[in-house]
Amino acid sequence: MSTVYYTLSNEIFRNFLFYAVASLLKMMIMSLLTARQRFRKNAFANPEDVVTSKIKNLVPTTTDPDVERVRRNHLNDIENIIPFLLIGFCYIPCNPDPNIALWHFRLFFLSRVLHTFAYQIPLAQPSRAITFFIGLITTVSMAIQVLIRVY
Amino acid sequence: MSTVYYTLSNEIFRNFLFYAVASLLKMMIMSLLTARQRFRKNAFANPEDVVTSKIKNLVPTTTDPDVERVRRNHLNDIENIIPFLLIGFCYIPCNPDPNIALWHFRLFFLSRVLHTFAYQIPLAQPSRAITFFIGLITTVSMAIQVLIRVY
Amino acid sequence: MSTVYYTLSNEIFRNFLFYAVASLLKMMIMSLLTARQRFRKNAFANPEDVVTSKIKNLVPTTTDPDVERVRRNHLNDIENIIPFLLIGFCYIPCNPDPNIALWHFRLFFLSRVLHTFAYQIPLAQPSRAITFFIGLITTVSMAIQVLIRVY
Repeated sequence: MSTVYYTLSNEIFRNFLFYAVASLLKMMIMSLLTARQRFRKNAFANPEDVVTSKIKNLVPTTTDPDVERVRRNHLNDIENIIPFLLIGFCYIPCNPDPNIALWHFRLFFLSRVLHTFAYQIPLAQPSRAITFFIGLITTVSMAIQVLIRVY
Repeated sequence: MSTVYYTLSNEIFRNFLFYAVASLLKMMIMSLLTARQRFRKNAFANPEDVVTSKIKNLVPTTTDPDVERVRRNHLNDIENIIPFLLIGFCYIPCNPDPNIALWHFRLFFLSRVLHTFAYQIPLAQPSRAITFFIGLITTVSMAIQVLIRVY
Repeated sequence: MSTVYYTLSNEIFRNFLFYAVASLLKMMIMSLLTARQRFRKNAFANPEDVVTSKIKNLVPTTTDPDVERVRRNHLNDIENIIPFLLIGFCYIPCNPDPNIALWHFRLFFLSRVLHTFAYQIPLAQPSRAITFFIGLITTVSMAIQVLIRVY
């Protein structure tokens, strides 16, 4: 019979679940950071949202630099964290070495946390570029291991 | 041996598959709603799309308020529905109570359908904000249950 | 006992893993294409990125048409490839016919590669619209098969 890899008794999968959920929670915090900037800057995207502000005759805006910075960060998370997790689900049944797998998960998660700090403080480049590429390389490394295993 | 949770004979997983697919279909409808508004308002984003309109010398635009409203709604779906589904896949092997799981799935799906109506009619705030937070809380609740189980 | 479908010994799943990873790699290439256009056009979104250019007093911009074209393509990938993969994960345990499943995966992947070429060359419409709809129909077809099996 086939071995079951998607089970909590598989240490690799349990580690993956932890970093998957942690990465997604980090990503979802961007929604709250966007809302915070919208209220702080009175920069709302929709006419029906403007009324929540005390300022009279406020017009909607989608170009506030502080709001847009958080939103670009959020979109960058979507562009990178979601592929990492989907490739991660593909990687588990390939039965990788537990230690190599764990370090992929750790490195990816750390790179995305640092990417957020580099984007939001913001730090001088190439800080953000480096964190972005560490995350990308980790994901591509897992992708290649999957392709090798299924072919 | 390990119990298999990702199987149609597991009622929790079967319910998850139903709400996962339903949520994704709801999200994909946003693409068609965007296209509908683009044709209705003659607001196309690319020069090569403009020629499909009968209006002469039409210029591309990415700022039509009706098109952008649907697109913000679509992006909000991506920011919320995708994390819910990925956390859902992590939640299944944690073997939650079938009833509690089902109500998480139902509540989330309902909150996102109502969110779309609140966004597109549009309804006065805080309607949309409430539906957004119900979806967010449901997702975070599942995330916490996963973190507790794997640690 | 339950049959395990998420295993490399299941040919359908192995084919899915290949096309899933290939689609995600195609999508992630968009990040690099965006960066390439930003450097080529000196069109950076953030003040801290502008200093990487040799041009003095360069201001950040989020409206360069060549950069925005790649970004719209990237977002369209997210809106379509991610739902396809999530529905794909739901489709595997429904135990579809191996040949029908394989052709769904092949057709979807091919449609998204052609969509990128149609968007970036760009080709005259309805080229891009056709590739978009082939991908959408493939995804909806899998979604319907899942809904039928779980009900």
